[in-house]
Amino acid sequence: PAEQAGADHSAEQPPEKANTADKWSEEKKKNYTERKYLTVEKADEVVWVRARVHTSRAKGKQCFLVLRQQQFNVQALVAVGDRASKQMVKFAANITKESIVDVEGVVRKVDQKIESCTQQDVELHVERIYVISAAEPRLPLQLEDAVRPETEGEEEGRATVNQDTRLDNRVIDLRTSTSQAVFGLQSGICQLFRETLTEKGCVEIQTPKIISAASEGGANVFTVSYFKTSAYLAQSPQLYKQMCICADFEKVFCIGPVFRAEDSNTHRHLTEFVGLDIEMAFNYHYHEVVNEIADTMVQIFKGLEKRFQTEIQTVGKQFPCEPFKFLEPTLRLEYTEGLAMLREAGIEMDFYILDKYPLAVRPFYTMPDPQNPKYSNSYDMFMRGEEILSGAQRVHDAQLLTERATHHGIDLEKIKSYIDSFRFGAPPHAGGGIGLERVTMLYLGLHNVRQTSMFPRDPKRLTP
Amino acid sequence: PAEQAGADHSAEQPPEKANTADKWSEEKKKNYTERKYLTVEKADEVVWVRARVHTSRAKGKQCFLVLRQQQFNVQALVAVGDRASKQMVKFAANITKESIVDVEGVVRKVDQKIESCTQQDVELHVERIYVISAAEPRLPLQLEDAVRPETEGEEEGRATVNQDTRLDNRVIDLRTSTSQAVFGLQSGICQLFRETLTEKGCVEIQTPKIISAASEGGANVFTVSYFKTSAYLAQSPQLYKQMCICADFEKVFCIGPVFRAEDSNTHRHLTEFVGLDIEMAFNYHYHEVVNEIADTMVQIFKGLEKRFQTEIQTVGKQFPCEPFKFLEPTLRLEYTEGLAMLREAGIEMDFYILDKYPLAVRPFYTMPDPQNPKYSNSYDMFMRGEEILSGAQRVHDAQLLTERATHHGIDLEKIKSYIDSFRFGAPPHAGGGIGLERVTMLYLGLHNVRQTSMFPRDPKRLTP
Repeated sequence: PAEQAGADHSAEQPPEKANTADKWSEEKKKNYTERKYLTVEKADEVVWVRARVHTSRAKGKQCFLVLRQQQFNVQALVAVGDRASKQMVKFAANITKESIVDVEGVVRKVDQKIESCTQQDVELHVERIYVISAAEPRLPLQLEDAVRPETEGEEEGRATVNQDTRLDNRVIDLRTSTSQAVFGLQSGICQLFRETLTEKGCVEIQTPKIISAASEGGANVFTVSYFKTSAYLAQSPQLYKQMCICADFEKVFCIGPVFRAEDSNTHRHLTEFVGLDIEMAFNYHYHEVVNEIADTMVQIFKGLEKRFQTEIQTVGKQFPCEPFKFLEPTLRLEYTEGLAMLREAGIEMDFYILDKYPLAVRPFYTMPDPQNPKYSNSYDMFMRGEEILSGAQRVHDAQLLTERATHHGIDLEKIKSYIDSFRFGAPPHAGGGIGLERVTMLYLGLHNVRQTSMFPRDPKRLTP
Repeated sequence: PAEQAGADHSAEQPPEKANTADKWSEEKKKNYTERKYLTVEKADEVVWVRARVHTSRAKGKQCFLVLRQQQFNVQALVAVGDRASKQMVKFAANITKESIVDVEGVVRKVDQKIESCTQQDVELHVERIYVISAAEPRLPLQLEDAVRPETEGEEEGRATVNQDTRLDNRVIDLRTSTSQAVFGLQSGICQLFRETLTEKGCVEIQTPKIISAASEGGANVFTVSYFKTSAYLAQSPQLYKQMCICADFEKVFCIGPVFRAEDSNTHRHLTEFVGLDIEMAFNYHYHEVVNEIADTMVQIFKGLEKRFQTEIQTVGKQFPCEPFKFLEPTLRLEYTEGLAMLREAGIEMDFYILDKYPLAVRPFYTMPDPQNPKYSNSYDMFMRGEEILSGAQRVHDAQLLTERATHHGIDLEKIKSYIDSFRFGAPPHAGGGIGLERVTMLYLGLHNVRQTSMFPRDPKRLTP
């Protein structure tokens, strides 16, 4: 019936009119079925689906569409016969890839598995099809190229998509099964981080990003015009999470953007990234906090393994890697011996801690090691050999803090309110900051943080 | 015994040395008991507590301390006798308020309730006391003044603390039971927001804050120096959460800072606040999304009522107000009738929605009302008569979006990547942005958004 093809919800109509109450009165409502429920259990039922046209292939009196919804897809067949006219097949064949359509059809069991789809046992015999939002015919990149493993591209001479093309057209690149899985898992990392720390009795805090003093020292800080004066973008929530400890919140965490004006064009640097931050008062020794942070990471790894198998496997199809390995409790090495071990043999574990860094390489607020003042009560954590967390016990005495800041050449006037926070009783405390994009990248064995930042920022990229 | 008073963990020692492994060997470990577990069930047991000295009162051969840990406090008695020397009583009496101490003592049931403490049925008979971190003797504000209801201050001529003193010394102001409760509840709002939306199938996203185009139009935007060029601070995650919808994430939320360079010095404006943002594709009508957002708010209100009674009551002691009222489903009025009703009689409900604002007062990306192009498919939500959320159906057609942006005088070149996102199929969608500090303020019936921002930023305040 030509009616479907030319109906008022087709591509010819301005889409903004296609979705208002009067057009979709109750009796016209379609009972949408999510793609993932399209299984043999629905065989011979009539369903509606809203999906993108992933691929389209016309062949005589038939048109095969693959309909996609996020990571799921199903084959749909428009064939001349009782249900569809020649005109309708032509209409379907002309729908551009990536257009969003509403399709009504009967679910049919198929004899041979459809290997190219996630829903392999059924296909949809289409009775009606409406275009909800039409895509322009020329796509800046092809989704099938964007998910092709690089080795396959090289060996078989098939196209892959380079990083700048991906990032320039990020909205399309993010539609691939790989991207959907990466950011699904990333959302899971944040959730597991918070779940674990809430369980440990931590409070979530919100710290300001526009600040009057560079939190990690003067270099690498972005300047903001602030009415008649100027301010900085926080390089970390460091000073503020410590002030929350001085304000009796005892154990705090936060998730938020951090900004580094560093002209580093590497696979692991971004000018804006998401920091997962922790700060905790402790009773006896800063290792109490190190253990809590390490356990938080372990709970994240366990949770990902348990809840995100589909995502891990989806990413693995394009970017094969060894599954992530960790011990419990976490391997902790002292800096000096650790470096020696790494030099000699490498470390088999994907996740480990280096403890007791030289004081000279750490920020001014780092607690010196009372046994050896050339070293400090500080630590980094590593995944697959790359740093993902930097942390330390902090100086909690105003006088020592003043000395350390002076030693680092920091303008005391600018951090006055921070130093003053320690004058009215401050518990010993330690913490650390984790880079979300790095954790995502290294957990999945990817090779560039731009793959794990939805809209990455680096010295050369400000858009999209 | 003088030993406790002069021990190597007392105030005379540099605090950074008081918390390292060698000082606190296993056999020296104290079995700390949290204040909230100090009840008659522990009567006659010996316990250790780490706490702040909240108040101190010496009286002949005795010294009464109130020890505080967050919102809990307990009375401690140091008395000359078997357990303490005259010297120790003197040492205790000289400990400055707000110092952090470790105290060992016997829990004793008291005959008469101690009205001034949360732990009313017991007191601690102190045997040892160490100063972990000494506070300077002159506090910039007194905690008891900071929690005094203003009416009481006025009527009885007792001191209260003005807002600037509080904010200048925020770390101390945040220690009050009121502040602890406010920010405990605020942490709960974020948690309930995420719980509810995760339950609804939303994905958490992270959007960039340094952007190349002003998301809400050119005015009121902060400029950042970005290497050899300049950029803006995001006034909202608007463009990016919509781009995530174009990228098939379907339903997304995010929590993050938003920045407004607005020279508004009112009780409800901040230059940096925390936005709770939602964006969802819908099938038939934007009211599907309005209902989801309203239900999210209702779930937050219910969750607060259920899980945060202590906090609500604690804040209520200083700032009495009517409990927050809401209907289910939420009252939704159209803008025109709503304004008339408000003018005539006021609205009894604390939470309601105004729908269908005039198009002219909304941002360029707002979907016009197809029935009446002077109006729009947009809405605000209100708590106790003040706006806490602004939202709308968005234009999802590149051509209409171009027209609307041009009409608003926006430089199309700057938002090119945003507009291009709608060229390759975009589902109808709607969303909204909620101000965390306003929700916290209005839920608790407070009167200034600076009370609900830990470190508020306004045109005149950049520190602490």
